[in-house]
Amino acid sequence: MTGGSVAGGYAGRRDLRALFDPASIAVVGASNTERKWGNWLAKGALRGAHRRRVYLVNRRGGEVLGHTAFSSIAEVPGGVELAVVCVPADQFEGTVRQALASGARAIIGISAGLGETGPDGHRREQAVAALVRDAGAVLLGPNCLGILDHPGALYLTSNDLPAGPVGLISQSGNLAIELGIKAAAAGLGFSRFASLGNQADLDVADLVADFAATAHVEAIALYCEDFRDGRRFLEAAEAANRAGKPVVLLSVGMSPASVTAARSHTGALVSGVRSIDAACRATGIERVSSPQELVDVLAGLLLGTAPAGERVAVVADGGGHGAVAADVVSAAGLTVPAFSPELASRLSVLTGTTGSTANPVDLAGAGEEDVWSFARVLEAIVTSSEVDSVLLTGYFGGYGQYSEELRGAELEVAEAVVALAHGAGMPVVVHTMHEGADFSEALARLQVGRLPVVNRVEAAASVLARLVRRAASSPEGLPDSVPALPRPLVDGYFGARLLLEDAGIVFAPARAVHDSDEALAAARAIGYPVVLKAPVLEHKSDAGGVVLGLADDQSLERAAKAMWEQHGAEPLSVEAMLDVSSGVELLVGGFRDARFGPLVLVGLGGVYTEVMADTATGLAPVTEEHACRLISSLRGAPLLLGVRGRPRLDIEAASRAVAAVSRVAASRPDVIEIEVNPLLVCREGAFGLDARMVLRMPQPGSGS
Amino acid sequence: MTGGSVAGGYAGRRDLRALFDPASIAVVGASNTERKWGNWLAKGALRGAHRRRVYLVNRRGGEVLGHTAFSSIAEVPGGVELAVVCVPADQFEGTVRQALASGARAIIGISAGLGETGPDGHRREQAVAALVRDAGAVLLGPNCLGILDHPGALYLTSNDLPAGPVGLISQSGNLAIELGIKAAAAGLGFSRFASLGNQADLDVADLVADFAATAHVEAIALYCEDFRDGRRFLEAAEAANRAGKPVVLLSVGMSPASVTAARSHTGALVSGVRSIDAACRATGIERVSSPQELVDVLAGLLLGTAPAGERVAVVADGGGHGAVAADVVSAAGLTVPAFSPELASRLSVLTGTTGSTANPVDLAGAGEEDVWSFARVLEAIVTSSEVDSVLLTGYFGGYGQYSEELRGAELEVAEAVVALAHGAGMPVVVHTMHEGADFSEALARLQVGRLPVVNRVEAAASVLARLVRRAASSPEGLPDSVPALPRPLVDGYFGARLLLEDAGIVFAPARAVHDSDEALAAARAIGYPVVLKAPVLEHKSDAGGVVLGLADDQSLERAAKAMWEQHGAEPLSVEAMLDVSSGVELLVGGFRDARFGPLVLVGLGGVYTEVMADTATGLAPVTEEHACRLISSLRGAPLLLGVRGRPRLDIEAASRAVAAVSRVAASRPDVIEIEVNPLLVCREGAFGLDARMVLRMPQPGSGS
Repeated sequence: MTGGSVAGGYAGRRDLRALFDPASIAVVGASNTERKWGNWLAKGALRGAHRRRVYLVNRRGGEVLGHTAFSSIAEVPGGVELAVVCVPADQFEGTVRQALASGARAIIGISAGLGETGPDGHRREQAVAALVRDAGAVLLGPNCLGILDHPGALYLTSNDLPAGPVGLISQSGNLAIELGIKAAAAGLGFSRFASLGNQADLDVADLVADFAATAHVEAIALYCEDFRDGRRFLEAAEAANRAGKPVVLLSVGMSPASVTAARSHTGALVSGVRSIDAACRATGIERVSSPQELVDVLAGLLLGTAPAGERVAVVADGGGHGAVAADVVSAAGLTVPAFSPELASRLSVLTGTTGSTANPVDLAGAGEEDVWSFARVLEAIVTSSEVDSVLLTGYFGGYGQYSEELRGAELEVAEAVVALAHGAGMPVVVHTMHEGADFSEALARLQVGRLPVVNRVEAAASVLARLVRRAASSPEGLPDSVPALPRPLVDGYFGARLLLEDAGIVFAPARAVHDSDEALAAARAIGYPVVLKAPVLEHKSDAGGVVLGLADDQSLERAAKAMWEQHGAEPLSVEAMLDVSSGVELLVGGFRDARFGPLVLVGLGGVYTEVMADTATGLAPVTEEHACRLISSLRGAPLLLGVRGRPRLDIEAASRAVAAVSRVAASRPDVIEIEVNPLLVCREGAFGLDARMVLRMPQPGSGS
Repeated sequence: MTGGSVAGGYAGRRDLRALFDPASIAVVGASNTERKWGNWLAKGALRGAHRRRVYLVNRRGGEVLGHTAFSSIAEVPGGVELAVVCVPADQFEGTVRQALASGARAIIGISAGLGETGPDGHRREQAVAALVRDAGAVLLGPNCLGILDHPGALYLTSNDLPAGPVGLISQSGNLAIELGIKAAAAGLGFSRFASLGNQADLDVADLVADFAATAHVEAIALYCEDFRDGRRFLEAAEAANRAGKPVVLLSVGMSPASVTAARSHTGALVSGVRSIDAACRATGIERVSSPQELVDVLAGLLLGTAPAGERVAVVADGGGHGAVAADVVSAAGLTVPAFSPELASRLSVLTGTTGSTANPVDLAGAGEEDVWSFARVLEAIVTSSEVDSVLLTGYFGGYGQYSEELRGAELEVAEAVVALAHGAGMPVVVHTMHEGADFSEALARLQVGRLPVVNRVEAAASVLARLVRRAASSPEGLPDSVPALPRPLVDGYFGARLLLEDAGIVFAPARAVHDSDEALAAARAIGYPVVLKAPVLEHKSDAGGVVLGLADDQSLERAAKAMWEQHGAEPLSVEAMLDVSSGVELLVGGFRDARFGPLVLVGLGGVYTEVMADTATGLAPVTEEHACRLISSLRGAPLLLGVRGRPRLDIEAASRAVAAVSRVAASRPDVIEIEVNPLLVCREGAFGLDARMVLRMPQPGSGS
């Protein structure tokens, strides 16, 4: 970990030194009343009074927390670098103006009741943000809970957080406190914290960029509801990741209820799960779903060594623990391979155990007999090249309770285990059956040595699985931005086909027909049997808008007549009927996320789309190689790759089609959604059989 | 919960009063040496000396733990009811004989080194078990860790366990200790515990039956590696479940490594995951994969109320917690529906919150302002009929830390929440962001009121999901046993077809042919195109053993010649070629589990078998109704039920076929495996296209 500047860094970084390392602070709204923000923040600021000048400001002047309070920030002699503003919303603008006038280079807006209350509040805070920027300063918040920097003794928030190597950026105060509690239990903590609030000026991208460039931040934990300029955020996250500072994101937006909740909470524009997943895959962000998972994954990443593969050795003192661990490790998608007879018998000799030594290893009481058995077993395993990681499960950490002598021995063994793991560069994750690391100095020693110690075996397995997946894949990278092309001239089905054909998709031959004569002429030109479609219907196949296998003039004429009667005088489409039986249908779509921009989605198509819900998403545009990886990541990919004697299908053609759709999505800001469904992937070629497009409503006066 | 006898009870229950409620105990092998079993057990037994006579026995006599030790159990005046035997293996038989001679009605075999060491040890412990049974007594173990009964002050094991309403049966000592630690954190504990050991006499079925009939056991927790007489175990579990005492099973056998581990640990014959799942679905056993999950699920079941549906209200004091909870609840398969405008505005009025009240509810500080907000919100929700359960998430339990007054208020609110939940009969599950219930009297009060309190929001969601699933389905019940039919006369493909056709499966017409003339005659009788198969190959389609679509004499003759050349002079099969394009292929199989007996398996067939791994299993035989539920439980079931304009297929015919295969599996003990794959399900009818069978090796001298 190097500090200061970030290699291959992030260009748009703003200077946040006045925020995180100010020479002077004023807390405006400082108060003597307990359980008020102005009280908490004033107390916190004073904790760093040995490092910087701290001024308390209260409209009524007088004395606050034993210090003379200024009645206005304007009165502070020599001005202040950082102003923490916790005044009622109606005094917010005035206070910020005064702070800027006093030379403040950074403002923390604690005040609530602005942007999150609606359009009026939003306009007000935007105006304040513009003032701040014009003054060359920065604004965090408003409606935020402050910041914290342990090495800098900067405590400007309501609750303390345990100290440690992680930087935390959060859009929720209580979640930050929960992360603090869970991190402490895991032997982890935070070097720097920032609450996002309404992001009127500084946004998540600015903070990630700052944290990535801060020496004492080794990893970044993030709870974020609204990613604002999503691509800028991703550039910052990518730079952090490249600098060896992994980003772990606790996100919401996986359910309609959470989207509504976040909108109500901070007025956030929440991105959907598909967008967030694509964004994470592009930049190496690790996405988690809960505070505990965030802490577990951080512990795994801070270990600093990556497993070379999925082979796990399970070491237990007790057969039940070994068997249960083997199952949860397997369920996590890893393997617990049987050791070679040589290694197994070496382990038997080393430990004298009567239990199994073939993996899982069961010391069967040998650990209790001689706690050094663990170190001997670990040494033989990590030097064996038969596995890629070790899960130590069960009783370890509890032997020390029997006697002072055992306590000392267990502590030394813990030290030895740490040295073995780091010496061999092999991840060792520890499940302890005991209450937690508080219980035992040996477990705490493992944590100090950066080995993850968890008290649920399933958490140990899932951390290992996460490390294996992370090591096995590299981030896709951010796509280059592409020049915007104009709004398509033709809307609807035929417009979508035109756009997609232009991009390189091959469709089944089709002709728009307006009457029976045109229909028959088209069918003869294309060749029977044909398909007849009513393109006016968005979901054609659900509404009788598609008739397949029309074999002659008579049946075509009858079908066309019925369709015109049912759906009006719109043109119909007469199309070639391809043989779908030997191909596999994919769904390929492009769409726009309000924050992350254009995306492309590919999934198993036809009836399997709904049944299997098997899709993958990438930031658009994607290259053909990236498209191929997306297709290959589907659970149904073996259907295309050839299984059980089935032929290998033309994945290259499918990849070209996915890349083409992604280019359309990326280059046409007016195309909100576009879809080829199905794309029939055959042994040679991939063919669009249907298409659909949604255009943005023309803006009044935009001329389009 | 009623005690004493179990309604609709379990017939084969053995009398275990001498084991769990003895009038007198002798600990044989009692010792003064710390960290020896004989020391732990003697100390434990003496803790109950106010309830019963306790004798310590040591070969060398003298004094043990301040009591005069007998040098042999034979010397104990008046004999003993329960003998706890912790002597070296070579003294085991002799000690048991002496104990029985002294009138012992129950023996606990702590001694290790018998059945788990191999066939010799197994024979020795079987002989001892026979002795014990002949004397009308019972034997627990050997190689077990003893028993415990809190209400009876019976402490005959190495470690204490927290007291509570659960009965624990475990085949692992360290796992039992881990369960004790995790149960205590959840406010739970154990009334009775038994360690299974080698199950030489008493087995898991006996213990489950005893626990089910014990008044102070309200739920049964089980870690078991070997189910012995599986159907008898299931009868006991079914009786327990019917008596309102749910059984939660931590099982192993989900991975090859755990099967090997368990075999090495206790010589267990481990059942596979499919067998265990079928067994659980039949009897209402809840299967879990880890100690923490076991405790979480127990807490949910002990709540005693079941959600009527999947609608969850999320209540938080903080928008982040509400949004994250909404996502994890949705990910668990439940819904977080928006409240009606009436309920939402009522909640706003009740709490004065500025946060969201539409679900998730965000008190946005109103909880901190007035902790009674929680009770008011809960009351409005549980009486609204808009949801089926409530997840309270985040800060609750932490307000009391601010002042003595708030501590009291929060405690009263906790009391009110318990009363509201039970009054409305609506499950309320609590996620606390704080360290655990130790942290707060309010959380402890919720636990006393049987509300599950967990510190991971994902655990709260998964407990709720478990309760919803459990309430929505009733156990399938155990199948009746069927008379055994003789070994099939014909083996191989043709034998399998015969057996299955006899059971009612309709196959594509086929004829065995031995030369070209027979092949051509067969094809003409069946009608071209035909399929040609080499039944001698087990995996025909992988080895060039199937040729499809032979349209005339010439191509059939050529294909047959090639097949005879490649695979020898075995008969080939000429078969009708059905049109598979409009049907869906299933795999239907029957197999035997060493413990649970015959089972039937159904899955999505053809290439999807491997790609989707989508199967369901039932104890055989199954009824057609049960078969239909198995098919409907597949993720791919919509393919049969008709989706997106596809026709509904003949699920009834498929169900009949599954039931038929299950009858074959159940009635033919010599058929180890039998499979119809694929079974083509069409709009009318379901047709076997291929079959496979494995017969047990004929036993020497069995005449078959």
